[in-house]
Amino acid sequence: MENVHFHRKWHPARSAGHRCLARGLSDIAAMGGDPLACFLSLAVPPELPQRWIDEFLRGFLDLARRFKAPLAGGDTSTAQQITADILLLGTVPSNKAVLRSGARPGDQIFVTGKLGGSAAVLKRLYAGEKVGSGAARSHFYPEPRLEAARRLRQAELAHAMIDLSDGLSVDLAHICQESRVSALIEASAIPVASGGTLDLALHGGEDYELLFTARHGAKMPGRIAGVPITLIGKIESRSSGRLPVQIRDKQGHIKTLEARGWQHFGKNITSR
Amino acid sequence: MENVHFHRKWHPARSAGHRCLARGLSDIAAMGGDPLACFLSLAVPPELPQRWIDEFLRGFLDLARRFKAPLAGGDTSTAQQITADILLLGTVPSNKAVLRSGARPGDQIFVTGKLGGSAAVLKRLYAGEKVGSGAARSHFYPEPRLEAARRLRQAELAHAMIDLSDGLSVDLAHICQESRVSALIEASAIPVASGGTLDLALHGGEDYELLFTARHGAKMPGRIAGVPITLIGKIESRSSGRLPVQIRDKQGHIKTLEARGWQHFGKNITSR
Repeated sequence: MENVHFHRKWHPARSAGHRCLARGLSDIAAMGGDPLACFLSLAVPPELPQRWIDEFLRGFLDLARRFKAPLAGGDTSTAQQITADILLLGTVPSNKAVLRSGARPGDQIFVTGKLGGSAAVLKRLYAGEKVGSGAARSHFYPEPRLEAARRLRQAELAHAMIDLSDGLSVDLAHICQESRVSALIEASAIPVASGGTLDLALHGGEDYELLFTARHGAKMPGRIAGVPITLIGKIESRSSGRLPVQIRDKQGHIKTLEARGWQHFGKNITSR
Repeated sequence: MENVHFHRKWHPARSAGHRCLARGLSDIAAMGGDPLACFLSLAVPPELPQRWIDEFLRGFLDLARRFKAPLAGGDTSTAQQITADILLLGTVPSNKAVLRSGARPGDQIFVTGKLGGSAAVLKRLYAGEKVGSGAARSHFYPEPRLEAARRLRQAELAHAMIDLSDGLSVDLAHICQESRVSALIEASAIPVASGGTLDLALHGGEDYELLFTARHGAKMPGRIAGVPITLIGKIESRSSGRLPVQIRDKQGHIKTLEARGWQHFGKNITSR
């Protein structure tokens, strides 16, 4: 949704199309699935140049082709704001989907890639900086982690998994809630993206990396499908009376991590 | 899309929700399919009363329940206009889907129900009339013809089928194009809805009735699943150099029927 998920003045049309589909592909990755088809409904203001639509579709269809998710249908309309709604169908072998609910006390917590990079770019855009889409691909052209997720599922390494769309603090809380466990993460272990901060890595959102848990002692490679894997903490028994995610800061103090999460282009990100 | 497919001042929220899903269910019917699941993405202005959303969902979910199309996912956002995008999944036995491309020269052309009723209501709304949703159900609460379509498919009666969403002149042209045939319909045979006109029945749209062709001499019942079936014309060989649909008027003159079709709440409907 224009002015909610992207801004025409900041995001090239091609990036908007890429990001639109990447969001759905990342949801398929989060379950260890394979994309089967995608659907796109697109509504645009009548005065929008055709070139914008062509570039949007180029970003969208390039990604669809690369991940074998052919465009299988959709709808069109006019609208005041550019509006694109997608739906992805995916497949996964019976009973092999990786769910949010599979984390167990004692599991280790891992993330792929680096965190906070997308939000760091957004912060710069809000501050009025001009940021080229070539130099900030994690924001403009995020890469859904489909291959890494598929391998984790095939190796049966991940007990629970989610993609980092809302931010680590929110998405880890989702796993904890659905698995009825709590989590302790180490601030010093969080892989912060270049240009990012710990705060953006914890709460920034739209990184589209994977967050997953695995049995303590499981043989975890340093990289999967070319993507680095980082151990960031452990799953513990559920503790009633406090929020499910705790963080140990660099001084060794454990405190509760509020699920602050992602405010779509909201005021919060600029005041952080 | 608010102000394109519905107007808040005319359409109760419950009708908007019903119409939104009916459109997709009717597409499933058009192929002789059974709905499997539906998906809804809903974006609303922040100031929209919660009651509007509740009523929209009531209209949507009542219909979903009645036709066994459980809501299986979707997304939410804020937007300037109320925006609802749906996707329907349906099933049909292998190779039994009724397509637009199956019409053959010699086939007879049939429609279910009465035509032009929805557009007649719209015309009254545009003229400033107050039209109660109870008295004009064909516009506010159209009934997707799923059961009639399923029986036509099971009996293997329909060679080609489409639902009348854009208007008879446009939708019949779709069948002709995809089947590479032409069509001749009889003005005197068109079942015009009470309050409608022949013009609205030919071009009005949003009737969500079925248009289908069947072998000449096929034993066609007068009603299927309680819905009247009317013979309106016949399929002929494709004739190059003219538009594919001809109409014989009440004086016996044959003329080309332009695919004028449906202008969503556009200016054309008021000037007709």
